[in-house]
Amino acid sequence: MSAPLKITILGCHSATPKTNAYPTSQIVEVRGQLLLIDCGEGTQVRLRENSIKFNQVKHIFISHLHGDHFYGLIGLLSTLSLLNRTTPITIYAPEGAQEILNIQFKYSGTYLSYPLHFVELKSTKSELICDEEKFIVKTIPLEHRVYTNGFLIVEKEGKRKLNLQKVEELKIDKAYFKKIVNGEDVISDDGSLIKNEEVTFPPDPVKSYAYCSDTTYKPDIIPIIKNATALYHESTFLELHKNLCAKTKHSTAKQAASIAKQANVGHLILGHYSARYKNLDDFKAEAQTEFENILLAKSRKTFVF
Amino acid sequence: MSAPLKITILGCHSATPKTNAYPTSQIVEVRGQLLLIDCGEGTQVRLRENSIKFNQVKHIFISHLHGDHFYGLIGLLSTLSLLNRTTPITIYAPEGAQEILNIQFKYSGTYLSYPLHFVELKSTKSELICDEEKFIVKTIPLEHRVYTNGFLIVEKEGKRKLNLQKVEELKIDKAYFKKIVNGEDVISDDGSLIKNEEVTFPPDPVKSYAYCSDTTYKPDIIPIIKNATALYHESTFLELHKNLCAKTKHSTAKQAASIAKQANVGHLILGHYSARYKNLDDFKAEAQTEFENILLAKSRKTFVF
Repeated sequence: MSAPLKITILGCHSATPKTNAYPTSQIVEVRGQLLLIDCGEGTQVRLRENSIKFNQVKHIFISHLHGDHFYGLIGLLSTLSLLNRTTPITIYAPEGAQEILNIQFKYSGTYLSYPLHFVELKSTKSELICDEEKFIVKTIPLEHRVYTNGFLIVEKEGKRKLNLQKVEELKIDKAYFKKIVNGEDVISDDGSLIKNEEVTFPPDPVKSYAYCSDTTYKPDIIPIIKNATALYHESTFLELHKNLCAKTKHSTAKQAASIAKQANVGHLILGHYSARYKNLDDFKAEAQTEFENILLAKSRKTFVF
Repeated sequence: MSAPLKITILGCHSATPKTNAYPTSQIVEVRGQLLLIDCGEGTQVRLRENSIKFNQVKHIFISHLHGDHFYGLIGLLSTLSLLNRTTPITIYAPEGAQEILNIQFKYSGTYLSYPLHFVELKSTKSELICDEEKFIVKTIPLEHRVYTNGFLIVEKEGKRKLNLQKVEELKIDKAYFKKIVNGEDVISDDGSLIKNEEVTFPPDPVKSYAYCSDTTYKPDIIPIIKNATALYHESTFLELHKNLCAKTKHSTAKQAASIAKQANVGHLILGHYSARYKNLDDFKAEAQTEFENILLAKSRKTFVF
């Protein structure tokens, strides 16, 4: 079994934080690494409440600089320094994030205990921004009131897997197993070539996660997120209040589902609910008129794919 | 009875916020007005949890720009704007606060719905910074790792009170009562002058509250806070860890009590506890070796004087 792709919702409500209605932040565990996406006020407390080893986070992705996605970052970075972290952190964020953080470090006399790197996002086209050993991250250009990106996290293909039955049949010595798993062919005892494909299974299919918040309905993201294992797409409103989408540059649950359907994703996770709605099941019902596999984001909930 | 002087503790722990250990913030109700002192991360949620009508706050006092006293301000100001507040707010804070807030408003495209005024604090001497109808606020220069002030809130003397028994005895017509309460003398029916003091009681004694956090032991604040009704003085450490005070520029519970004793205040409220201590009663016990009237700050606790 490959490592699960896990998404833990730390907060999924829009605008102002309240008890039990936290602003946006998520932890994505991909191939064993923890990534933080967005960081609304109070995120560091949410991380503790969810028993997440947040000192392991090396990459932080910020979609845009509205407070409900960003105001918790300065506190989290300060706390990591108070905990004497030494591992570097890279922040992927729009222009302004670095300036805002640095000015606060300056006036508070803060010298971080760890190196902080910035990747300033400014392109309006999808670009590869993070290329790690086991996964990559690309931007998903969104349309909101300020410059905003979603993020597409894609696992890299793993190694082929040993076909134990076959290597036994062919009496291949265990000493070759490592080479085989690394993709090499082997020569059997009788001198014949055994092709790697004969003694291995293909690697697990790669999984991917697309995070899209905040944005209007934007069908041109579909080719970027096509066939994603899971899509988180904001649904601030129901169709009932569709008229508010144009001004605020948000989406309805139905629009999110339409994107999910057209992109043929595995599951759609809805979130970023406006505080005006009491019953979140209405979001699910509305979205299911377009697309079947709907999940509702909820604080403290972990989705595993 | 005069209006009570109320101090509600929203948070009183040092450094990093955790569930049930919130960073510094207090609401002071003086002569019916709400003042906010310091604003650590999550303060807006604490205000809601304490059912405080925070839209009524017109004055916000920031002691210094360390995160545990300041990181919640941007979120609170943004929320007040989302709530369509129109009443102005004045922020009294060290240099840097205005720049930090404005740069975040700029990059988030935020235009506040209300006027935001700044009083930049830079003096190292105590100064009058706020002079309202019913109270004044003065700075208390403190010594910490960055430029820091405490705040002394002093009620203005109220009106003298009508001596109902006396006005009845002297058969003074009700029509004169308002004048009397406003300090005027009256002429009785027989033409004789009745001095105001004869028919009134003195006004209630004025109350005052001194907030001192964060600071080393600094006896030269004593003349400024002399005879205050209540003093909040930080006690980050116990004497056991007194050696940490010099480096971190904090105080022990005993030092706080010594200040309280020398300043002859009515009550000392301790707070800003380091996370290393499990039993807060130790702070009280240590402080009581110097000064009797010790209160322990605790989230959600309101002290009434």
